[in-house]
Amino acid sequence: MGMDLRRLEEFLLANDDFLITTHVNPDGDALCSVLIFHGLLLALGKRARVIINDRVFPKYRFLPNSHLIQPVGKLPKGVQKKFKHAVILDCGELDRIGRVSELLEPQVKVLNIDHHTSNGQFGALNWVDPQKSSTAEMLYYLLKALGVTIDRGLAELIFVGVMTDTGRFRFSNTTQAVFQIAGEMVELGVNPQQAAEKVYFERSIRELKALGNFFLSLEPFFEGRVYLGYLKEGEKAIDTEGFANFAITIKGADMAGLIRGVKPNQFRVSLRARDRLSVSRIAEALGGGGHPNAAGYLTEGTLDQVRKTLLKEVEKHLNL
Amino acid sequence: MGMDLRRLEEFLLANDDFLITTHVNPDGDALCSVLIFHGLLLALGKRARVIINDRVFPKYRFLPNSHLIQPVGKLPKGVQKKFKHAVILDCGELDRIGRVSELLEPQVKVLNIDHHTSNGQFGALNWVDPQKSSTAEMLYYLLKALGVTIDRGLAELIFVGVMTDTGRFRFSNTTQAVFQIAGEMVELGVNPQQAAEKVYFERSIRELKALGNFFLSLEPFFEGRVYLGYLKEGEKAIDTEGFANFAITIKGADMAGLIRGVKPNQFRVSLRARDRLSVSRIAEALGGGGHPNAAGYLTEGTLDQVRKTLLKEVEKHLNL
Repeated sequence: MGMDLRRLEEFLLANDDFLITTHVNPDGDALCSVLIFHGLLLALGKRARVIINDRVFPKYRFLPNSHLIQPVGKLPKGVQKKFKHAVILDCGELDRIGRVSELLEPQVKVLNIDHHTSNGQFGALNWVDPQKSSTAEMLYYLLKALGVTIDRGLAELIFVGVMTDTGRFRFSNTTQAVFQIAGEMVELGVNPQQAAEKVYFERSIRELKALGNFFLSLEPFFEGRVYLGYLKEGEKAIDTEGFANFAITIKGADMAGLIRGVKPNQFRVSLRARDRLSVSRIAEALGGGGHPNAAGYLTEGTLDQVRKTLLKEVEKHLNL
Repeated sequence: MGMDLRRLEEFLLANDDFLITTHVNPDGDALCSVLIFHGLLLALGKRARVIINDRVFPKYRFLPNSHLIQPVGKLPKGVQKKFKHAVILDCGELDRIGRVSELLEPQVKVLNIDHHTSNGQFGALNWVDPQKSSTAEMLYYLLKALGVTIDRGLAELIFVGVMTDTGRFRFSNTTQAVFQIAGEMVELGVNPQQAAEKVYFERSIRELKALGNFFLSLEPFFEGRVYLGYLKEGEKAIDTEGFANFAITIKGADMAGLIRGVKPNQFRVSLRARDRLSVSRIAEALGGGGHPNAAGYLTEGTLDQVRKTLLKEVEKHLNL
């Protein structure tokens, strides 16, 4: 498994009252991973809370036990304020857990489980495996290794985590193991149709119109090897997570991006690439992070400045 | 396998000079199936030709040996004119092979392999199994049963056939066996990313902008249970086949449609439905046809007339 199972097991068995968390703006794999880990700790007879920086996007509220995920800004009264033991999942850097960091004791012991290449090994225990498609896949192996039964709920979480992080069985991380695990989860009762429809096929008409505006705004750069599109502020409630995925499907595109206004002079940039370019390196250079195929960052300036800075960085990475 | 393997094997071994074909407007599974069967007959030392009614869509020309698929209208000179033995794949009715029927001897013996519930059992030998995701999946079992080695080329054909007929691992036919087979094909060298990109992700920027215009034109009717969108003439070279599929993903929509100008006062209407409504009945009433979930028709009039006539027909089928 590429991990010291005994030390990990010891950490879980010897302690209690765990905080489980993940990165800001959590995607499918992040949300599934915190819920899988919560199920694992319950199976070990432990107490644990899942607290994350943000609210759960409505499309992920069908996930079993998703009501147990609490945004840090909306904790019920009387909740334990600080944690001595934390499990941080699918998160490359400690500061990407956002305001959840306020809940950590100064002496906190962190278990860090992640599949991002860029992971900073910030834990007391670290299990980082970039060969795995998703953190959910890693937790599948962990459940097996610890002998925890995968019930239908856990199976659905594993399936959705793997499905979302492989772009529905499409990215280059779609290994034979991914298909094998997906098949096993179907055997355990997961309905692939239902899962895909919930995540990908329950759009709002507002989301579709925003997507239309994004398509119409797309501009080519570097002779069509890069496409950038834009969305204004005011589309806050809309989940634009998948928008840039559409743009990277343009024939000949090596990279595509969405520059989205968050508030005046602040933008969130989502980048997608095919295998000829690594957008995580570009995002890292501009203060963010991610995977080679999908990365992003938050930045300040005018739209024109943001675009110029991005294109200048992109130029360094394109083999022109 | 639910098939008399010995009779099928006998039919293939005792005869030669087979015609292999499939239905008009062949989709991914149809094209992969004829090519898989061609490979199978070659492995048995047989002569076979793949002749179909139409040309192969450009996006499927990456399939191994796709150049062996010959449209009936473009046969090279000197080709055998009539066949005594035919293998018809993924085709519910004999007349759906189109003009290929002109190549059949009156005494032709047909082997009919298909997974459509509606299959008319028109062959001398019939192997019809609606439990299977795709004809490609059926042929996978056949290759195994006959002991034919699945090389990388055959593996890619099986993968793409299964992938396309399950809507990329999404429709209700996505069984455990589907994932198991997909995983096995990856082990045999198939690159899932490449396959998905070729079939689904080589859009033109013009297509994406037309899609954007379609999204922005979407209007709700019947309190959001029906959405219609529009495209002007002049987008002729664009493949709008999948556009209405996006609109039917809107939450709460029972039906969605694209009304596309073909020439002055002529429109092509594409309809999509979820399971609560049958658009084939609507399209049939207006002079077209299709499946319960996807249907269409060609019609004349002004845009306003076309929309009114459609909505009037839709109203009869909605349970208001």
